[in-house]
Amino acid sequence: MEKIRVGIIGAGGYGGCGAIELLHNHPYAKIEGLIARHDTGRAISDLYPHLKGFCDLPIAAPDDPDCPKDFDVVFFATPDGVGQEWAPEWLKKDIKVIDYSGDFRFNDPDFYSRYAARIGRDKPHASPWLLPQAVYGLPELHREDILRTNLVGNPGCFAVSCILGLVPALKSRLIAPPSIICDAKTGVSGAGKNPSPTFHYPARYDAMNAYKVSGHQHVLEVEKELSLVAGEEVTLTFTPHVVPLCRGILTTIYGQLMEGIGIAQVMEAYQVFYKDELFLRVFGPEVLQSTSHVRGSNFCNLWLNVDERTGKLVVVSHIDNLVKGQAGSAVQNMNIMFGFEEGAGLMRPGLFP
Amino acid sequence: MEKIRVGIIGAGGYGGCGAIELLHNHPYAKIEGLIARHDTGRAISDLYPHLKGFCDLPIAAPDDPDCPKDFDVVFFATPDGVGQEWAPEWLKKDIKVIDYSGDFRFNDPDFYSRYAARIGRDKPHASPWLLPQAVYGLPELHREDILRTNLVGNPGCFAVSCILGLVPALKSRLIAPPSIICDAKTGVSGAGKNPSPTFHYPARYDAMNAYKVSGHQHVLEVEKELSLVAGEEVTLTFTPHVVPLCRGILTTIYGQLMEGIGIAQVMEAYQVFYKDELFLRVFGPEVLQSTSHVRGSNFCNLWLNVDERTGKLVVVSHIDNLVKGQAGSAVQNMNIMFGFEEGAGLMRPGLFP
Amino acid sequence: MEKIRVGIIGAGGYGGCGAIELLHNHPYAKIEGLIARHDTGRAISDLYPHLKGFCDLPIAAPDDPDCPKDFDVVFFATPDGVGQEWAPEWLKKDIKVIDYSGDFRFNDPDFYSRYAARIGRDKPHASPWLLPQAVYGLPELHREDILRTNLVGNPGCFAVSCILGLVPALKSRLIAPPSIICDAKTGVSGAGKNPSPTFHYPARYDAMNAYKVSGHQHVLEVEKELSLVAGEEVTLTFTPHVVPLCRGILTTIYGQLMEGIGIAQVMEAYQVFYKDELFLRVFGPEVLQSTSHVRGSNFCNLWLNVDERTGKLVVVSHIDNLVKGQAGSAVQNMNIMFGFEEGAGLMRPGLFP
Amino acid sequence: MEKIRVGIIGAGGYGGCGAIELLHNHPYAKIEGLIARHDTGRAISDLYPHLKGFCDLPIAAPDDPDCPKDFDVVFFATPDGVGQEWAPEWLKKDIKVIDYSGDFRFNDPDFYSRYAARIGRDKPHASPWLLPQAVYGLPELHREDILRTNLVGNPGCFAVSCILGLVPALKSRLIAPPSIICDAKTGVSGAGKNPSPTFHYPARYDAMNAYKVSGHQHVLEVEKELSLVAGEEVTLTFTPHVVPLCRGILTTIYGQLMEGIGIAQVMEAYQVFYKDELFLRVFGPEVLQSTSHVRGSNFCNLWLNVDERTGKLVVVSHIDNLVKGQAGSAVQNMNIMFGFEEGAGLMRPGLFP
Repeated sequence: MEKIRVGIIGAGGYGGCGAIELLHNHPYAKIEGLIARHDTGRAISDLYPHLKGFCDLPIAAPDDPDCPKDFDVVFFATPDGVGQEWAPEWLKKDIKVIDYSGDFRFNDPDFYSRYAARIGRDKPHASPWLLPQAVYGLPELHREDILRTNLVGNPGCFAVSCILGLVPALKSRLIAPPSIICDAKTGVSGAGKNPSPTFHYPARYDAMNAYKVSGHQHVLEVEKELSLVAGEEVTLTFTPHVVPLCRGILTTIYGQLMEGIGIAQVMEAYQVFYKDELFLRVFGPEVLQSTSHVRGSNFCNLWLNVDERTGKLVVVSHIDNLVKGQAGSAVQNMNIMFGFEEGAGLMRPGLFP
Repeated sequence: MEKIRVGIIGAGGYGGCGAIELLHNHPYAKIEGLIARHDTGRAISDLYPHLKGFCDLPIAAPDDPDCPKDFDVVFFATPDGVGQEWAPEWLKKDIKVIDYSGDFRFNDPDFYSRYAARIGRDKPHASPWLLPQAVYGLPELHREDILRTNLVGNPGCFAVSCILGLVPALKSRLIAPPSIICDAKTGVSGAGKNPSPTFHYPARYDAMNAYKVSGHQHVLEVEKELSLVAGEEVTLTFTPHVVPLCRGILTTIYGQLMEGIGIAQVMEAYQVFYKDELFLRVFGPEVLQSTSHVRGSNFCNLWLNVDERTGKLVVVSHIDNLVKGQAGSAVQNMNIMFGFEEGAGLMRPGLFP
Repeated sequence: MEKIRVGIIGAGGYGGCGAIELLHNHPYAKIEGLIARHDTGRAISDLYPHLKGFCDLPIAAPDDPDCPKDFDVVFFATPDGVGQEWAPEWLKKDIKVIDYSGDFRFNDPDFYSRYAARIGRDKPHASPWLLPQAVYGLPELHREDILRTNLVGNPGCFAVSCILGLVPALKSRLIAPPSIICDAKTGVSGAGKNPSPTFHYPARYDAMNAYKVSGHQHVLEVEKELSLVAGEEVTLTFTPHVVPLCRGILTTIYGQLMEGIGIAQVMEAYQVFYKDELFLRVFGPEVLQSTSHVRGSNFCNLWLNVDERTGKLVVVSHIDNLVKGQAGSAVQNMNIMFGFEEGAGLMRPGLFP
Repeated sequence: MEKIRVGIIGAGGYGGCGAIELLHNHPYAKIEGLIARHDTGRAISDLYPHLKGFCDLPIAAPDDPDCPKDFDVVFFATPDGVGQEWAPEWLKKDIKVIDYSGDFRFNDPDFYSRYAARIGRDKPHASPWLLPQAVYGLPELHREDILRTNLVGNPGCFAVSCILGLVPALKSRLIAPPSIICDAKTGVSGAGKNPSPTFHYPARYDAMNAYKVSGHQHVLEVEKELSLVAGEEVTLTFTPHVVPLCRGILTTIYGQLMEGIGIAQVMEAYQVFYKDELFLRVFGPEVLQSTSHVRGSNFCNLWLNVDERTGKLVVVSHIDNLVKGQAGSAVQNMNIMFGFEEGAGLMRPGLFP
């Protein structure tokens, strides 16, 4: 079988790098072109020297006539606003699109506007007619739709950790939706590649902080997805934190258990819901989990606990924000869209220590 | 004025080291003796070379006849179970006692037994007759009692961060007690000095985890203190996490706001309650906080937020676990017990970066 | 082709874990048995949860009759002294042996005794008759011998970084052997899995130190190998340091250049010597290097510089101590011993960031 | 005694912050004014919140007429080029000047030009007439001159670590000057406050690198000072490295010992030379040292070793780059210039862990 041809737009950022790490030896896909606005003309392995010998393609400007364009799929590993501008011309050529940003996570322009407001973007969506066909790229919820679409909005990293940690509980009506609190801690790689005072090494060293208390943009897609699952409007409290490690999101999720629900029912609900999922691992209270168990891999590990004194469900959700939270999900979506086995190119355990 | 003489028992651990860092140039106190079971005969500055020239006292065994014993106060910088065994003989000689462990945080032997059970200790308290006179060493709540007692149970590090973050809200009845959730993140120094697989550098690197979900022992003193403040029994959900930094506890505290309470009332309640407190800093939503602002100092910084969508109070509480969470509190308690100005020896800003 | 069967002895340590990470999807080899003294009966993925689903074999005690023993090759991922005791019985059964320790790095029992003295081992070698056939497992120097032997002594991590950084310079007589200084910095993972006060997270945080100044055991194998290359006895100064990162050895190597030698000759010597090497990358002065470029991969990156003011060659050598410095070299040696392509199972770029 | 009035120019950087941490409770000095080009009008404690309550002065623009100017001394905590421009007008008003940069480290404009070339500065010195009176601010070498001058060029952080580690050896002719190699490792705080790709947290995490091999500017002041001590021209090899910790420089210094010199003579030379120095600690081979022993303090710890096999002196020099390597030295120089006891405001042990 001939490999499909993949183009990566925004190839110079961590999201592009992550995709290359996964695709350089993918059994059914090969990287054919790298496109970005910065560092054009340079080999990607100049920017990311660990890729030397694995991927040495040059970065082409978006309008470079020499850049190959006959892809089967393009990854928009770009910030908000880019995909909505340029996706139409790729789609027109029958090229599938997977976008990392919030541009295609919502089917409704009005809902998108609420999201846009949270990130300080005051323009309407540039391609609203595409939204109805866009699928939210969380395979565990929308596998069938991903298979049928040509446009996927890859989910936000925090959102992946929250949604996967909550869906079975809501599906099985184990908890009361208004009680949900998600307390998320992320490593610094989520900040992306561009330097800033907040992520300057000395300033961040030995330091942790909460931020965007009650205002983070990912909460909207979490609520949207969970509302669908719960069959009622879910509004939740979400607090992101940055801690000084590199890869990993740990989200501690709290919900008030319905009368009579204990750990046994919780375990069953999660095990049943995820029983066929390749990248979900469900653990009961006795097995302590850590983000190091998923570092570098596409897994989401869920650690289920019940606080009997207060009747709370406490789910601790662990992902690598750059893999299951970004490039890994994108590759998983690509696999589904093309009918490959879902784990192709993704079956690696990461590194320890 | 002659300086009071301080003895430190359990001097070889981080809690002893922290006390020495604060007391070596205290205006009214001097360290007269260091006592421990391990490393006897060695200078403390052999164990902690940064102290060389600041404190070079030898470590004496508890039964060493040459060790000075005529202290005015002893710090038990020891694990659970030591203070309750040995405090009586110091108190008999009219020497004040400040104990770092849970041994004297409770006035009631039965309540203590609940605590003991959580730390896997199945013996009854060794000196139950002392408990009624023991004062919980949180000056912001018990200053008057600390002034009058000769026996202080220094609070747990997590407990300090939770209690200080919640008291004004409960005092002013801003939140519903059953809704309280404390999500705490601690640096690794809380693990103390002894190596373990969990705190082995390679194993901990780039890793974070929750632990003792619903089972941490500090929750009991938090509930006890908050119940006193609230005038009703408070039971709360508490989840500790370890993140790979050295110093700092950040606790994110959630509570359901009473009808009609907004950020203005929250700000006022906290500002009024803490207006005369030397070591509390209260910040409104607009000023992002970080544990690096309190690293190395005795301050507790509270960042107040309201999530209007969900009606939640979100208080982010920041301390240095080894200072306000341990040795700093102990010195603050000592200052109060002896009538010194409360900040003596404690007015340092820490280091940045 | 049927895959060869690999057994790993000492499977519970980082060296065993590293081998499993590389072998779990090796095209020509499969892990058939894990043997260790500790944690017997437990699945390896209980100790290293990131391996769950990739390798879940149980750990068998060395004398466990149920443990499969019909391997084609065994890895002794064990500390000094184990391989020399137990290798004979595997070799007798015609099973190849790759030993991670210093047990088989020397062909001469007397030379071995010098090594043993440095690690505080005062017993003679347990299987001295095996030493003549043992090959020092650095493919870049001994590929032909590795191909023909059944017993490989895998090199020390520091030694790999020093030898690869120096061989071309000595081969081409660019520098004066007595002038050589190797200043090595290693991450903490080299400490292995067992906790110790020196590698306790809080004690190691924000701290770096030199150790074993002039006394590290790896210097002997460096001198032995370099003496062979130089055709004269090489004695060098070597100082190891520990810095608080996880993976990586950076060794800065200094040597006095022979009259008239400049960067051009240096570049040529290295490029020629390593021109067919899969895992060596040679860089000139203009391209700054970092250990992050080799983290997680089997590469050794050499950064060549000349200090014209002082006539010094300055080679900066970068490896991942757990891959090229340990398990990666072992797998590379295995590939050679069995006639596989040398990079089988090893062609991964690592992770960034 | 009235306290002297200190002004800090360039107050917003780490060097200004470090001075404030030391001066906020100095017994004989008080901070009267903070001057900088950026963040004018903001309180310094807005930039560095840990200073809140300790120093809340506003930052004034250099030309702000409301800014107090009647200082007794100004610290130029500024990058190269600022002090040479503005020092004259302060000196004219009889205000002493301590400059952190290379502007006043050399008495000779030509020598300065060599330095300027290394930092890419192609203009001649702006105030060359001041150079003869400028004193290199290393008290251990130039105490008498510092006492008599009104203009001090505070030494470079790497230079402090190298010079203090080498002076006694050269003074006592223990080593051959041409053989000297300084291999320096610094934490990231030396990068200063401004973000850059190289010090972006994710990019720097788990990474170390050498840089400016043979080209770092600090080597010139090291050579100048050591040449004075040795009575002959000293040219040395110097390689800086960055490792991912925050505070600390560890420099490993190598020199060929003269015939017949052993550890005893080395120990004696260093102990004698530094016997009256407040901030130097000299250790023999048996006591392993670490940068954590000097973190947060003004000490330089020297660990003396001899490699008998190769006849090399190996001195490991440890400082906190932001204290003895910068603000601490500046305060020490101020103390000397004003006749205060040299350790005033500087006698703190730092924090551990």
